[in-house]
Amino acid sequence: MKILITGAAGMIGRKLVRALMRSGKVRGQPIRHLILADIIAPEAPDFDVEVETLATDLSQPGAAESLIAQRPDLIFHLAAIVSGEAEADFEKGYRVNLDGTRALFEAIRLAGRDRPYMPRLVFTSSIVVFGNPLPPVISDSHCLTPLTSYGTQKAICELLLADYSRHGFFDGIGIRLPTISIRPGAPNAAASGFASSILREPLAGKRAVCPMPSDTDLWLASPRSALRSLEHALDVDGAAFGDYRCVNAPGVTVSVEEMLAALARHGGDRGLVDFVPDPAVAAIVGTWPARFDTSKAAAMGFPDACSIDAMVRSHIEDELN
Amino acid sequence: MKILITGAAGMIGRKLVRALMRSGKVRGQPIRHLILADIIAPEAPDFDVEVETLATDLSQPGAAESLIAQRPDLIFHLAAIVSGEAEADFEKGYRVNLDGTRALFEAIRLAGRDRPYMPRLVFTSSIVVFGNPLPPVISDSHCLTPLTSYGTQKAICELLLADYSRHGFFDGIGIRLPTISIRPGAPNAAASGFASSILREPLAGKRAVCPMPSDTDLWLASPRSALRSLEHALDVDGAAFGDYRCVNAPGVTVSVEEMLAALARHGGDRGLVDFVPDPAVAAIVGTWPARFDTSKAAAMGFPDACSIDAMVRSHIEDELN
Repeated sequence: MKILITGAAGMIGRKLVRALMRSGKVRGQPIRHLILADIIAPEAPDFDVEVETLATDLSQPGAAESLIAQRPDLIFHLAAIVSGEAEADFEKGYRVNLDGTRALFEAIRLAGRDRPYMPRLVFTSSIVVFGNPLPPVISDSHCLTPLTSYGTQKAICELLLADYSRHGFFDGIGIRLPTISIRPGAPNAAASGFASSILREPLAGKRAVCPMPSDTDLWLASPRSALRSLEHALDVDGAAFGDYRCVNAPGVTVSVEEMLAALARHGGDRGLVDFVPDPAVAAIVGTWPARFDTSKAAAMGFPDACSIDAMVRSHIEDELN
Repeated sequence: MKILITGAAGMIGRKLVRALMRSGKVRGQPIRHLILADIIAPEAPDFDVEVETLATDLSQPGAAESLIAQRPDLIFHLAAIVSGEAEADFEKGYRVNLDGTRALFEAIRLAGRDRPYMPRLVFTSSIVVFGNPLPPVISDSHCLTPLTSYGTQKAICELLLADYSRHGFFDGIGIRLPTISIRPGAPNAAASGFASSILREPLAGKRAVCPMPSDTDLWLASPRSALRSLEHALDVDGAAFGDYRCVNAPGVTVSVEEMLAALARHGGDRGLVDFVPDPAVAAIVGTWPARFDTSKAAAMGFPDACSIDAMVRSHIEDELN
């Protein structure tokens, strides 16, 4: 199996590479070749198969074609700039998140004109494709009315994914990942960054700022849960999706207060978190839905997301020990 | 008022120009300048104001910028290739229906960087943005899961319209027009062409082919009804739309059998219609919803669509006398 991962230098990308290395195979077949692409060259993992690492910008002419020329069997398209950056830089958001994705899809379609080519493509969408009006619980088929440019770009890519899959250009699966918590490492420009930092920083003995009130509900998944969803997406039957190719990935609804209580249960000092309201973050995060119906994912065998306590514990195990 | 109409050489575009000429003003102000653009130069109407007619392809570099350089106050963006052609020619469909629209939106956004510019933009979307799963009646906020490339392109443009409007780049209104019946003139490549030809041809004493069974329900609006929706879209308050800028335009649910009964009531010979099932048409038209909740349009003052009898009558009045 030859696997292409875009956005491979990102947090999820790096963890996905390690998870693939651990199992050494996908769909029952050995992994023989990894192509890791990102805007900066991903670190080459110490992995006993052919590995290529590439610094490439999918939105530039020829970039996607050159990745697809190798005809990977499986593609994880993770590359994107995050919500805060896409909102602040309108042009960059559309160039990277929309044009880059479309260039990849087009490269696959055109590669299939020469000789049959039908890779499984796993695309990471997001819960921010949903906006007002929001019912108490969001179903898989709830209307996409995003309230940010990032959400708009993801929603457009979902529509493209469905159309390209319907035409048989690739076998696409879109999974709408919850907000990931706890992200390791430095904060990024995502509006949801606090959903990690209010746990991560105190666990490292550092102060953190929470820009939202303590009763704010969030829809979260740990990095481990997100990876389980991504890996499972390789195995599900694309036809089981019906005409639309996206599913709400498993997550859990947790309030900021519940997060801080879990922090305390695992030895963190919740006193290190300062509540400093930020209208700019509230304007974005306040529109995000926090409760989802994931029965479609469950029926397709996606594993349940772990609890807030398991989220904190896995961060301690994976990142702090 | 300076008005730009793209797709001005099409059936709706030509009728819209005549309707605007009749009233001579919009939003209470006189029309002083009309810019009529299409892929072929639209016919110059005999109209006592400045009129420009332009053959232009919005998807070509610079084309949209040159139209927007004149800073029209009102823009009707009607230009598109139809459903059957967009399904048969994947590249052309995306180039014209998506890239052309995006180029227009971008030209407006960039024009507003130099000095304030905020035109009202009326975009014609379509009921084919909806697909499975379909409830018995489609609401304005039903999920967009189009089953054709044309529907995908329209759905993507709806999302762009909402995001550009939210950013304040223009004041966008999208109206999802029903299938137009009776279209005058020659058949076009739309899969819905029969919805006009089974009435139009017998009214002219000619034979017509109906590719769908007689119990097929369709969601229809006459050209006059569609024009009333387009003209009303100039007057509605954009903010009344909320975050999403599209509305289901008024229409009526009519079966093929009811259409033929109306044909007979107006002196047409329904025996001139041959039922010849066409799986390619059925694959497209069979997915189209036929019943809509238009309460949002009604609340915004969009006039009701006319009945099937009025549809036939207005065709006789407008086209045959």
